[in-house]
Amino acid sequence: MKKDVIPNQDIITRDEYPASKKIYVKGKIHNIEVPMREISQDDTIHKLTGKVEKNHPITVYDTSGPYTDPNINIDITKGIKRLRQQWILGRGDVEALNTISSQYGKDRLADKNLDNLRFPNLQHKPLKAKKGCNVSQMHYAKKGIITHEMEFIAIRENQRRDQLMQNGVEFKQHPGQNFGANIPDGFITPEFVREEIASGRAIIPNNINHPESEPMIIGRNFLVKINANIGNSAVSSSIAEEVEKAVWACHWGADTIMDLSTGKNIHETREWIIRNSPVPIGTVPIYQALEKVKGKPEDLTWEIFRDTLIEQAEQGVSYFTIHAGVLLRYVPMTADRVTGIVSRGGSILAKWCLSHHKENFLYTHFEDICEIMKSYDVAFSLGDGLRPGCLADANDEAQFSELETLGELTKIAWKHDVQVMIEGPGHVPMQLIKENMEKELKDCFEAPFYTLGPLVTDIAPGYDHITSGIGAAQIGWYGTAMLCYVTPKEHLGLPDKDDVKTGVITYKIAAHAADLAKGHPGAQHRDNALSKARFEFRWNDQFNLSLDPDTAKAYHDETLPSEGAKIAHFCSMCGPKFCSMKITQEVRDYAAQLKTNETEALEKGLKEKSKEFTGKGSEIYM
Amino acid sequence: MKKDVIPNQDIITRDEYPASKKIYVKGKIHNIEVPMREISQDDTIHKLTGKVEKNHPITVYDTSGPYTDPNINIDITKGIKRLRQQWILGRGDVEALNTISSQYGKDRLADKNLDNLRFPNLQHKPLKAKKGCNVSQMHYAKKGIITHEMEFIAIRENQRRDQLMQNGVEFKQHPGQNFGANIPDGFITPEFVREEIASGRAIIPNNINHPESEPMIIGRNFLVKINANIGNSAVSSSIAEEVEKAVWACHWGADTIMDLSTGKNIHETREWIIRNSPVPIGTVPIYQALEKVKGKPEDLTWEIFRDTLIEQAEQGVSYFTIHAGVLLRYVPMTADRVTGIVSRGGSILAKWCLSHHKENFLYTHFEDICEIMKSYDVAFSLGDGLRPGCLADANDEAQFSELETLGELTKIAWKHDVQVMIEGPGHVPMQLIKENMEKELKDCFEAPFYTLGPLVTDIAPGYDHITSGIGAAQIGWYGTAMLCYVTPKEHLGLPDKDDVKTGVITYKIAAHAADLAKGHPGAQHRDNALSKARFEFRWNDQFNLSLDPDTAKAYHDETLPSEGAKIAHFCSMCGPKFCSMKITQEVRDYAAQLKTNETEALEKGLKEKSKEFTGKGSEIYM
Repeated sequence: MKKDVIPNQDIITRDEYPASKKIYVKGKIHNIEVPMREISQDDTIHKLTGKVEKNHPITVYDTSGPYTDPNINIDITKGIKRLRQQWILGRGDVEALNTISSQYGKDRLADKNLDNLRFPNLQHKPLKAKKGCNVSQMHYAKKGIITHEMEFIAIRENQRRDQLMQNGVEFKQHPGQNFGANIPDGFITPEFVREEIASGRAIIPNNINHPESEPMIIGRNFLVKINANIGNSAVSSSIAEEVEKAVWACHWGADTIMDLSTGKNIHETREWIIRNSPVPIGTVPIYQALEKVKGKPEDLTWEIFRDTLIEQAEQGVSYFTIHAGVLLRYVPMTADRVTGIVSRGGSILAKWCLSHHKENFLYTHFEDICEIMKSYDVAFSLGDGLRPGCLADANDEAQFSELETLGELTKIAWKHDVQVMIEGPGHVPMQLIKENMEKELKDCFEAPFYTLGPLVTDIAPGYDHITSGIGAAQIGWYGTAMLCYVTPKEHLGLPDKDDVKTGVITYKIAAHAADLAKGHPGAQHRDNALSKARFEFRWNDQFNLSLDPDTAKAYHDETLPSEGAKIAHFCSMCGPKFCSMKITQEVRDYAAQLKTNETEALEKGLKEKSKEFTGKGSEIYM
Repeated sequence: MKKDVIPNQDIITRDEYPASKKIYVKGKIHNIEVPMREISQDDTIHKLTGKVEKNHPITVYDTSGPYTDPNINIDITKGIKRLRQQWILGRGDVEALNTISSQYGKDRLADKNLDNLRFPNLQHKPLKAKKGCNVSQMHYAKKGIITHEMEFIAIRENQRRDQLMQNGVEFKQHPGQNFGANIPDGFITPEFVREEIASGRAIIPNNINHPESEPMIIGRNFLVKINANIGNSAVSSSIAEEVEKAVWACHWGADTIMDLSTGKNIHETREWIIRNSPVPIGTVPIYQALEKVKGKPEDLTWEIFRDTLIEQAEQGVSYFTIHAGVLLRYVPMTADRVTGIVSRGGSILAKWCLSHHKENFLYTHFEDICEIMKSYDVAFSLGDGLRPGCLADANDEAQFSELETLGELTKIAWKHDVQVMIEGPGHVPMQLIKENMEKELKDCFEAPFYTLGPLVTDIAPGYDHITSGIGAAQIGWYGTAMLCYVTPKEHLGLPDKDDVKTGVITYKIAAHAADLAKGHPGAQHRDNALSKARFEFRWNDQFNLSLDPDTAKAYHDETLPSEGAKIAHFCSMCGPKFCSMKITQEVRDYAAQLKTNETEALEKGLKEKSKEFTGKGSEIYM
């Protein structure tokens, strides 16, 4: 493995989105400012009448953080702004520790050899709930408190739809088909957010030691979210690359980042990522715990694991994947599978269980873990260690037995007011996807579902962003709250920056398709705006409103690079004579010229008028 | 536009598939040989026992034609082997014409300026049904005749499953959920093929003037097929590029090719493509007809169109998109749409209808068209000229009114024993996809549905292979028989060779996912084989069994290029210590070492054994 390198300021993307500006919407309950992206559009000029139609700007959900605000200076050696610091301190239920609590963390801090890799600006003392306090958003919600975070989320989810509606911008959309979800028809209120958190149907991953993160919500009555996995492995990557991937993933739309590093310097890598991440960070702590015992699962202990949880909680990780449902008695159920256990965490714990012939220590210590979680507000992501790794193993006894145990654990976590989401598969053929969602809702009491894909076929390594995007769109529609992306490198190698982007965009498509299908209010608005731009040959608007303006523009410009082509009424696909949209517009404009629309024109008897039309030659507008 | 060039032998791909050989399966009724691809696999060597387990070769459906048979010489200036020539002549119902019938075709042939572009080896006289004869496969099927083509298809669809089952190769798969389809549990028989053709539930696009084509079937009780669109535009491409794209698309799995050329030398380009294509070719004849009237829709006449149909039928086009459902009275229904009419053919005919205030001449001359179709066995692909071009316009009155008219036309075509499929959308959000399929089956009497996507969101230009792949997988599952691919360049420009490949692979994924979900027998077999190879770290087998071995291997090799890595029990994603599959195998092998499986091991009391295990250190196999 090459030598580790720390990030250089210059490689972190500060690209702005084209024709976009960062806006901040103020709160009404709290003194907060919610960042959003506003995309401006060109006017439509109606050729015949010369009438100018204004196309109002579109506001969209923005996960990119301060990196896309040109007015903000960022020094990645200092970390981004600690947005939530005062909100957290203001609640009066936390204390600053003099030093970090984890022994491993202390050892790393004392190791001079790591000085050149360490995040240089660790001036903040870790926060922890005061004795007897519980700092989870669920705890506040159950007490009836609307936190800053909850109001922030309500504003964010609405995407300024109220203001756009005042502008007369259309929000027409097809009725959705949701499967028992309870998406508000109108606007999401802070009180609705509170209720969803209190009920456990949604979570806000929100560690008090990651005040840099912008609050976001995961629940099936909100916009479907996506997670991007990053992290090094023993074979590949560096701190610099991972920080860059994190910022890059947020730029393209990742709602959370999981740092799945399993290689060198996991502790230091994570610090760099958290201090510079505008989105919550999740981890699988067992990976680092395994590193600490030199990769021998059977040497893992509760004490080492516990120290790892505290180490990561004090750095600011907002959700932990905990494979507490991999029970000893479930492991033999995987014996006849085609691909056995494919979760890294699941296989580590299975090996531990078998070699000690003891019950999974994450299960036996589950309430101890809850105590840690509520002291920092870390949410559970209850891991599906026995998820299927191929179609043949989908929906089997091992998978569903574990799911039932995750439901049991959900109840325990909720008793502690600790937030919970449930991880799901994996590899599942289309006809079996719905059963996964239904069983999760039933067995886990509507805790949010967080799935990896699922991949709907096994035969396309190199394209598993697509095999899984198909499944992700469907399960998102059925009610999954967050979709974990899969990149083209899945099963083959560690994703690079390009793969991360491809994975994120593919999953934004799946999540948005699910929002549309569920009937999330206003979801279709961006589609309508882009389609109108497309029909009116506002090429730049079409690019700017798309999920990836750079690629859309580059593809167009490959064959028609000139500036003139950006207002041309055709592209290279069909050429000027065969563009259906151009011909349709001619038909429409023709009718308009007659001071009528096509319907009326027909009624008046187009036959006569048609002579006039053909008499002018094929081009109506000279 | 750059000067047109004819293909050079060297640019046409003759790549073979890795670890594969072309095999030919003989018929029982007819003297036919059905080409397939057989992929060999490495043995599994069980580490502990040393036992060698044979992994039998997998046979897969092969669309690549003679290009992947190294024993066959191909000269693209002569065209590929005329496989079906004797079958066609043997039926005694055709006559060879002394010259082509189309006036336009004759003019092109006489034009000395085209000598250097023309396919050089036009020695075959066009065939046509003898007076009073009908040469359509539907006609034969209704008479109870099992043609060579029908037996060929039955063998092809079975993919040698009988022989593989004798070899003891597993075909375990999940039960499908199909929506009223009638997929045989066991093997597809020639008689079943005949029945499906006779009923109109399936078609065999099979022009008697394209004897080079290998018979294939489109129907919802068979494997889901995919079409790749190619063709130049006025802005881009050449004959050489288009022939290359056609062979390339077949190499990656296209079941049919549509030549949608709208640029220069359409006639000559098509001849080159057909003579070298192993799959049926479809076209939209109105495009060329429009070229003949210099791009002025209002100048189109039935006579020009008729001459174009005959010109193309005598070249060997196997299906024509005919937009006969775009009725005058439907055009005004598109007036309030966001994107009006987005079908090129639809907009051309709408303009014609409005400017003449006459009914669509394709509708009024429909029976005349049937007469031509049955003389060459060209199938109808009844075009959806009013399909939605954005989500907002999905499932609207215009779209569904046209669909009802297509049903009416289906009945007329069937009266002539002319084969029919129905084209479908387009842009449709997920919750509205099913209604499209249900309405098509009902209104069009179960004629096969052939859809473009549908795209499930409008906001991702540059990624519309994915937005549409999501919809295609779903509608394929619901019963669509053929999926028309969409490439990343959709809405932006003319696809190049890379785009064609990406589009084809994406649609193979969608089609295969649909086969799995419907429960097509044996569909899961390739998934199972690939997953087993993955679990056993047979990296080369994993690549070779995949839809795109080149890409899978390249992605893997980016980080671990050495030959040794091809048998390594990890990849760069997780590294050696974190590979769940490796750990699971260790757990399994451990149990095997105890001459038992995990279940029994547990029953015997793993507690005692576990001491033994941990005593040996973390690595079980030294």
